[in-house]
Amino acid sequence: MIPGNLTVARNDDDLTSPPTTSWLVEATRTVSYSVSVSRDVFALDNPSLATAGTVGAGETRRRFVVIDKVVHEIYGDQLDRYLRHHDMTTRLCILDATEQQKTLDSATEILHGLDEFGIDRRREPVIAIGGGVLLDLVGLASSLYRRHTPFVRVPTTLIGLVDAGVGVKTGVNFNGQKNRLGTYEAPTTALLDRNFLRSLDRRHLSNGLAEILKIALIKDPELFVRLEESGGVLLDEHMQGATPATELAAREVLRRAVHGMLEELQPNLWETRLERLVDYGHSFSPAIEMAGLPDLLHGEAVCIDMAMTTHIAHRRGLVSDTELGRVMNVMRLLELPVHHVSCTPELLVRALVDTTRHRDGLQRLPLPVGIGDATFVNDVSADELAIAAESVVRAARTVPTGAQ
Amino acid sequence: MIPGNLTVARNDDDLTSPPTTSWLVEATRTVSYSVSVSRDVFALDNPSLATAGTVGAGETRRRFVVIDKVVHEIYGDQLDRYLRHHDMTTRLCILDATEQQKTLDSATEILHGLDEFGIDRRREPVIAIGGGVLLDLVGLASSLYRRHTPFVRVPTTLIGLVDAGVGVKTGVNFNGQKNRLGTYEAPTTALLDRNFLRSLDRRHLSNGLAEILKIALIKDPELFVRLEESGGVLLDEHMQGATPATELAAREVLRRAVHGMLEELQPNLWETRLERLVDYGHSFSPAIEMAGLPDLLHGEAVCIDMAMTTHIAHRRGLVSDTELGRVMNVMRLLELPVHHVSCTPELLVRALVDTTRHRDGLQRLPLPVGIGDATFVNDVSADELAIAAESVVRAARTVPTGAQ
Repeated sequence: MIPGNLTVARNDDDLTSPPTTSWLVEATRTVSYSVSVSRDVFALDNPSLATAGTVGAGETRRRFVVIDKVVHEIYGDQLDRYLRHHDMTTRLCILDATEQQKTLDSATEILHGLDEFGIDRRREPVIAIGGGVLLDLVGLASSLYRRHTPFVRVPTTLIGLVDAGVGVKTGVNFNGQKNRLGTYEAPTTALLDRNFLRSLDRRHLSNGLAEILKIALIKDPELFVRLEESGGVLLDEHMQGATPATELAAREVLRRAVHGMLEELQPNLWETRLERLVDYGHSFSPAIEMAGLPDLLHGEAVCIDMAMTTHIAHRRGLVSDTELGRVMNVMRLLELPVHHVSCTPELLVRALVDTTRHRDGLQRLPLPVGIGDATFVNDVSADELAIAAESVVRAARTVPTGAQ
Repeated sequence: MIPGNLTVARNDDDLTSPPTTSWLVEATRTVSYSVSVSRDVFALDNPSLATAGTVGAGETRRRFVVIDKVVHEIYGDQLDRYLRHHDMTTRLCILDATEQQKTLDSATEILHGLDEFGIDRRREPVIAIGGGVLLDLVGLASSLYRRHTPFVRVPTTLIGLVDAGVGVKTGVNFNGQKNRLGTYEAPTTALLDRNFLRSLDRRHLSNGLAEILKIALIKDPELFVRLEESGGVLLDEHMQGATPATELAAREVLRRAVHGMLEELQPNLWETRLERLVDYGHSFSPAIEMAGLPDLLHGEAVCIDMAMTTHIAHRRGLVSDTELGRVMNVMRLLELPVHHVSCTPELLVRALVDTTRHRDGLQRLPLPVGIGDATFVNDVSADELAIAAESVVRAARTVPTGAQ
């Protein structure tokens, strides 16, 4: 137990001097949430979604459901059947959850719908079904409504399944800045259902695989081998497991990616520690992503960042020739870009300055050590960046070897 | 230590059934903040405000200051001199912080100013100077900006000094509902300076004394005696302590009120427990306040609630005749209303229904036990409410006895 405390320092008995009572208020809060792999959350006999977030809180039948417009077009009928089967009274809020719509106004729209529908704030969690943008928006709205309303996340993209869907961040863009406003607020539950990937286009699958590759590179050599062996077929099959071998591969890749992510998030849930392994690939990518708009998806920018930082690590002797070759091959196999025309030496320097400021004055740059391990450095120079960027371009031109 | 934890339940080796891996993420966060009595925070030799929230974080000179329009008219020059004396680079955001302006739009206005000014999010706390509405607005904006930016509270009203300024709630009105949106976010520091009460009008002093009386009634008989003895002179002197005796009284009343409040808040900072003593006077008052707008101030509505519930407690034998008389006398002494024409039996029943729903199905109504103690009940009836409301009106008509 970390006990909460109220400490008083007092020196106000002397009426000739100003009173100096002061209190120190300390309190401890334990946050817990579950992340569960489920399959086919809209199957009538799967109770996961109907009961999510209600365990031990009595049976209730009202739900405010926020769903992405595109997801609703594909799965709306199934969802409707499911909710009717479970006798739910629901209000659907269908949202065009694009990056451009990731605004405080969209969050307010959700809040108006929620307030008009009315829910029991202890028993009737808001349900969010969609990609990262939608999950972030609903998370923010839920965290603000009555100073916190429980919510359930159902990610429908691969990046949502392994990244945005499993953490506690919420947010919106503001004043031209990505995720400038937001909260840390855990969902009650995140339900991870690979079925949604069936309808996800190939490029967005690659986009999600970039975040999975990140986890592999910084901490999970076995996951890396899985990607080497099965990356291509996972893409081809949309991770649906057409054969027992590919089913096992899909399960394992998803499980290991989520597990690795949660292992990193859990001890640092509120990001008080600024050295975060999961920031790998996210030091230069915000600038690359913004400069490359609308060309690049988030995971693509992350991969460009990882390609370059792997080259930096290689030049420093942290990554061998063979390892570098394997990494570049897997990126190719996952159909991810390793370079973009906007990624100039000037942009990289500017990005590093921004990132350093964001990390309280130190670069705290994660660099890979071999495959599946990493370290933090604070001394990357502008020259190193320029050389690495050039090496990536040169390497990208050479014929792939090995796994492919 | 409450260790954080990542627990995995896994059963996904059987490829013929759906995978059922699930994770339970648990993490513990300790929040701490200080509440300090200071005197004359704008005195050039008082470093409290210049250093608030920066301890151990290096010296910085940029501050985004949000100040109430009326407070700025009175103290703007002093503040300006103070900031210049301390070599601060500041941006002032002057806000017309009325209850009508307690909206998401006002919070957004603050956020635009903050984002344009730019601050070091670890070292340069936002400073909020004003009453409860302003403190709530700035608290919300700060909690959203980059998912949390430190802020310092400088309450300028008595209700701010003993209530809104010392807790962790932030919020705005939304869709016609009071504080419907908000967060729990601790300030870095709250600086309590009685000097501001000099310029506060008498009615707003009474308004704050109502919240102090609340603390006295539920848990501090000595504070009640202080109010009985000195309530009138505290009002007359705006708690400025013209003589050693009244200075001591002002100090003690403020100190005991804040201490009592913090003692109640600290173990239940996120309001997970719904039985809250500090909800005393706040069961019927939200409805009374709204119905009585623009007639009633918050503390006045709270006092009307307390007068009625003291009568309920009296009829139940929890409060004696003498105690009831003393309580009603102190309310009169503090120039607080005990009844309002809007406070009909129908309104009271409706208010109790609302409050019960808000408290998850039970009334959890704090009732005084004698003076300085309280209990929770769940069985107050409509008849009891009607009788109590009538008794208050009758009692209000009789000639005061005792202390006055």
